[in-house]
Amino acid sequence: MTAQPFHGVLVPVLTPFTANGEPDAGRFVAFCRRLLAQGAGGLAIFGTTSEANSMAPGERMALLDRLVEAGIPAEKLMPGIGACAVTDAVALARHAVGHGCGGVLMLPPFYYKPVSDGGIFAFVSGVIDKVGSPTLRVYLYHIPPVAVVGYSLDLVGRFIKAYPQTVVGLKDSSGDWSNTAALLARYPEFAVFPGSEVFLLDALRNGGAGCITATGNINVSGIAKLYANWRGPQADALQAEVTTVRKAMQAYPMVPALKRVVAHFHGDPGWAAVRPPLLPLDEAQSAALIGDLAKIGFTLGEREQRAA
Amino acid sequence: MTAQPFHGVLVPVLTPFTANGEPDAGRFVAFCRRLLAQGAGGLAIFGTTSEANSMAPGERMALLDRLVEAGIPAEKLMPGIGACAVTDAVALARHAVGHGCGGVLMLPPFYYKPVSDGGIFAFVSGVIDKVGSPTLRVYLYHIPPVAVVGYSLDLVGRFIKAYPQTVVGLKDSSGDWSNTAALLARYPEFAVFPGSEVFLLDALRNGGAGCITATGNINVSGIAKLYANWRGPQADALQAEVTTVRKAMQAYPMVPALKRVVAHFHGDPGWAAVRPPLLPLDEAQSAALIGDLAKIGFTLGEREQRAA
Repeated sequence: MTAQPFHGVLVPVLTPFTANGEPDAGRFVAFCRRLLAQGAGGLAIFGTTSEANSMAPGERMALLDRLVEAGIPAEKLMPGIGACAVTDAVALARHAVGHGCGGVLMLPPFYYKPVSDGGIFAFVSGVIDKVGSPTLRVYLYHIPPVAVVGYSLDLVGRFIKAYPQTVVGLKDSSGDWSNTAALLARYPEFAVFPGSEVFLLDALRNGGAGCITATGNINVSGIAKLYANWRGPQADALQAEVTTVRKAMQAYPMVPALKRVVAHFHGDPGWAAVRPPLLPLDEAQSAALIGDLAKIGFTLGEREQRAA
Repeated sequence: MTAQPFHGVLVPVLTPFTANGEPDAGRFVAFCRRLLAQGAGGLAIFGTTSEANSMAPGERMALLDRLVEAGIPAEKLMPGIGACAVTDAVALARHAVGHGCGGVLMLPPFYYKPVSDGGIFAFVSGVIDKVGSPTLRVYLYHIPPVAVVGYSLDLVGRFIKAYPQTVVGLKDSSGDWSNTAALLARYPEFAVFPGSEVFLLDALRNGGAGCITATGNINVSGIAKLYANWRGPQADALQAEVTTVRKAMQAYPMVPALKRVVAHFHGDPGWAAVRPPLLPLDEAQSAALIGDLAKIGFTLGEREQRAA
C-alpha cells in the first residue's frame, strides 16, 4: 500500500451551469477556491453530486483545465472518471494524471446488469493498465443506490492485492454503515471515506480517512470542525450538529436542493440550474427547504461568510 | 403520427473487436451486409447487444461512417444514441441525421436513480430540440432490466403528443408482454417492437411493427420467415421454432454467447471478443452452448450459408 494524499472532508463539488445549460467555469473556479479556503481536504470534482455523467468527457476535461489554470492545486483534486466505456475512462484518467491530480474517483461500469466481479475487474484493470502511470492513484467509487453496480468486499481485496501502489482508497456511498465497517476492518491500510458525514465520527474511530460528502458543498466548515476535533470532548456534539443539517437536506432531492441552497445564500439564482434528467426544485419545495434550514438555525457559517 | 420506415426483423448488430480491443470496422461492415442479405428489415446498430455503451461516442460515429461509406443504405440504419449526457446524445443524433439514418434508438438517461418522468422528458426533449431536424425519427428504447430507468406508459403518451412527427416508435425490451400489449392497445399508430422474437407473433397479431432482437444476429432468416408468414397456417409452428432457438441462447450470457456462435459457425475465433465489463464464455460454456444448439438442430440456415 502506498501513501495516499487525501484526508479529512472532501467535497464532491456541484457543477454550476450557465443560463444556456453550459458548464460555467467562472462560477466553478470561484466555488472550488472557496471550498478549499473553508477547510475542504480535497475536491472530488465530477462525482454524482457534480452531475458529471450529465456532461460529456470533453466538458469535464475543459472544466479541469480551467481549475488548474486558475491555480487550484492539482494535488487537492480527485476528479471522477466515471464512464461505461474503457476508452472514455482512460481518456479522463490520462487527462487527470497529466495535470498531476492527487487521485481519481472511479465508478464501476454502470450500464450492464448484472455484471460479474470478474467483468468489473477487467474494466478497472484495463483502465489502469492502459494509463500505465506510476502516479495514478485510484479511489473506487461504490454507490450502488445510484450506479446499481458496485464493488463487493472481495473485489476490493482483489484490487488491493493486484494494484497495491495504485488502488489506494474507496468512497463508500452505499449508505450502509455495516459495509463501511467491514471495509475498515478487513483493509486497515486502505483509505475508506464514507459518502456521508453522518458516518464521519464512526469512521474516524475505526480508522477511516475522512468523508466525501455532498453536503460539504454547503457545510464544509462545520464538517471540517468535526474532523479537526474528533478526538476531543465535543466530538459527539459536533457530529450531532452536522447530522442535523444532513438530515434536513435529505428530505429533498439532494443535488437540486444543494444548488438551491447555494443560490439562496450567495444571492445568485442562476446557481440553481441543473441538467436533465435532474430537475430544479419548484418554488414551493425551495421555500420549504429554506424554511427547514432556518428552523435548525443553519446559515452559511462564519468562515463561509468571510470567504464569500 | 408520421410514417415510420422500419418493419419486420431488426437486428441490434453485434460489434466485433480486433485482438487489440478496437472496434473492427471490416468485420462489422461484412456482418451488416450479410444480415441485410438474409432478410433483416433494418439494423439497430449500437444497442445493448452491440456493447454500444462500452464504446466512446467517437468510436460509434467512426463505425457508422464506415458502414455508410461501404454502401450500407442509411435508411436501413437505426443507430442507438444512448448516453447519460444530453451533449453526447445530441452529437450522436446529429451524426445519424447527417448520414440520413432511418431513425435513432434512444435510451433514457440511465445513471441517476430514481429519476422522474419529468426529468426523462426534459432529457429527451432537450435532445430533440437541440438536434432540431424535421428528418429525425426517434424510437424510444425501453430496457429496464439493464438500464433500470425506463419509459412508463404515460410518458410514452406524452412524447407522442409533444412530438408526433419525431417520436414514432419504441423497442420494448422489458421482457414483459403485458407492457408490450398495453403499448399496442393504447397507442395503435405507434410502432412498437418487442425486444425478443418470442413475442413476435403475439405482437404482429396486435398491431406491432416487428421485433428488434439480439438473436437476429444468428437467426435472422428464421425470424424473417415467421414475419413473412405470420398470417399463414404455419405461423405458430414457425414461432415455436424461433422460440426454441431463443430459449437455448437465453441459458447463457446473451452477448458473449451470440459472439461465440458467430465465431463458431463462421470459423472466425476472433469474433468472440467482447469489451469489459462483459467477459467471453469460457471453453466449457462454449462447448455446452454449441452442444445445446446441435441438440435442437440449429445451424446457420440455408440463406446464411449462401451469404457467408
